[in-house]
Amino acid sequence: MNRQEIIAYLGADWDRVQALIRDALHSDVGLLEQTNGQILSNSGKLLRPLVSLLVSRSLGTPSEDSVRFAAATELLHNATLLHDDVTDGSAQRRGRPTVAALLGPSAAVLVGDFWLARAVDLIVVAEHRDAAIRVFSRTLTDLAEGEMLQLEKASSADTTEQDYLRIIYCKTASLFTAAAHTAAVSVDAPEPLVRAACAFAEAFGTAFQIKDDILDYAGTDALGKPVGVDLRERKITLPLLGALEGSPRAEEIRSMVRQIPEHPEYCEEIRRFVRERDGIGRAVRSLDAWVDRALRALEAFPEGPARDALAELARYNIWREV
Amino acid sequence: MNRQEIIAYLGADWDRVQALIRDALHSDVGLLEQTNGQILSNSGKLLRPLVSLLVSRSLGTPSEDSVRFAAATELLHNATLLHDDVTDGSAQRRGRPTVAALLGPSAAVLVGDFWLARAVDLIVVAEHRDAAIRVFSRTLTDLAEGEMLQLEKASSADTTEQDYLRIIYCKTASLFTAAAHTAAVSVDAPEPLVRAACAFAEAFGTAFQIKDDILDYAGTDALGKPVGVDLRERKITLPLLGALEGSPRAEEIRSMVRQIPEHPEYCEEIRRFVRERDGIGRAVRSLDAWVDRALRALEAFPEGPARDALAELARYNIWREV
Repeated sequence: MNRQEIIAYLGADWDRVQALIRDALHSDVGLLEQTNGQILSNSGKLLRPLVSLLVSRSLGTPSEDSVRFAAATELLHNATLLHDDVTDGSAQRRGRPTVAALLGPSAAVLVGDFWLARAVDLIVVAEHRDAAIRVFSRTLTDLAEGEMLQLEKASSADTTEQDYLRIIYCKTASLFTAAAHTAAVSVDAPEPLVRAACAFAEAFGTAFQIKDDILDYAGTDALGKPVGVDLRERKITLPLLGALEGSPRAEEIRSMVRQIPEHPEYCEEIRRFVRERDGIGRAVRSLDAWVDRALRALEAFPEGPARDALAELARYNIWREV
Repeated sequence: MNRQEIIAYLGADWDRVQALIRDALHSDVGLLEQTNGQILSNSGKLLRPLVSLLVSRSLGTPSEDSVRFAAATELLHNATLLHDDVTDGSAQRRGRPTVAALLGPSAAVLVGDFWLARAVDLIVVAEHRDAAIRVFSRTLTDLAEGEMLQLEKASSADTTEQDYLRIIYCKTASLFTAAAHTAAVSVDAPEPLVRAACAFAEAFGTAFQIKDDILDYAGTDALGKPVGVDLRERKITLPLLGALEGSPRAEEIRSMVRQIPEHPEYCEEIRRFVRERDGIGRAVRSLDAWVDRALRALEAFPEGPARDALAELARYNIWREV
């Protein structure tokens, strides 16, 4: 199934998620209403609510809670994107100017807080609110800790693969895991299936972020996302970590990373180092291992189109030359 | 009772609030732990948890929930301060550099998100969590809407007194109301007393913000808070609104406010206009009316030292020349 077929398969549940998101964001403050509209019109692939609904569909019959949690996941995701655009100073998101760029960081922070508050509002009236609020507030902590750890490591340039995995779990996999976890809870799935859903989502989200980090080295600006950004921000991601592993130049390269703000020209040499040491190839092999892990976790799910669709989404992360 | 006597009166409950805040903020991410420590060491008057505990003490016997909600209120307050410092670009808070100034806006946003997440964590395990989460998430929406409305009005400079009252309710009174509301709920106060607690806190918080806005015109930098900031940010507050009321120059002055970014020198003339039209005197009269309202709401509370202390805090807002 491709994305369109998945959405057709989800049918009315998917429409209810969309409607719930729109309603939740309504505000009589004009600037807010207008900004929310701009964000919604550029809301990307809606991957998190897709995963969420497919999990609840695969493990049971999507309930009102399933729809609420799927919508809340997307609101929470967008809230963190709005805040990330401030922290990264990103001018573009999905090829369009960010709220931070359009209205200034202030608006991006506040709109992000608003989306966050609306997500909580969606969750607190749910039947399974207790479990859901615990899961989502843990994720909110993860997101902040992950970004702070990344910020800290940017200046020291001593990121290890363990740091890297924690960072991408916190900033990406944690929210996918929350989406799958709450989706499973929303249909009262038995504990082993809840754990399987979390295992799938953690591996899926990790693969998703690794692919994103590979694209930052191997992609083209044509994808609407400028390449080379991570390195300019001194973020040491998997392709560089792979290249550094066992290299006699490791310390020299790390100290070049530290000096990138004063010597932006170092980026090109570091990128050459990554290519020469097959950093991308190593990252791709790790990516594929995470995809396998996601697919293995799915084996615990009941057979059916929902499980197939989740597998499809997971395989989508497998590296293909761009 | 002065502040020290109030804290002595609250005794062990107050200590538990402090301890709960410290524990909630622990993180193994060094940069986060260190930043949290800096914020705690400059945490100001802790007015919100004070009001919260005094309300629960006045309406019953403070429970574990009372302590949790008081701590959560302060975490939520600091989270919003961290985000406000980004939106206002403030370099100082309580006479010390802001996190935004020290570590950049990125850190301020993320640390704010972290404090927010920790506040939610404190609430979700409470016995009265359902009511509390509804109240606090409503407040989070208010805070974002209020700041956005303020941002919107800053460019149009057409703020009415009604806009102003909504803005200060959303950005200040809403959180005081949430503190009093959840405190009353935490001791299972009867509905009329819950309403009285909310009425007190709304009037108290409104008076508190009006006084802050008056100080921005009438204060001195000696208070650790630079004066004239609101006008430079084109925030039209009560002293200016009072001066504009019925003035033939109203339109001229508003258009000067709009042009402040290009003509900072207009600020001095506008401030003179406020003085000449007794804008501060009008704002002071309104402030005193809100203080009276807060004191009247307290009449529904049972007599006792806790009620007296709340009255003391309310009277503290009454204008005295600085």
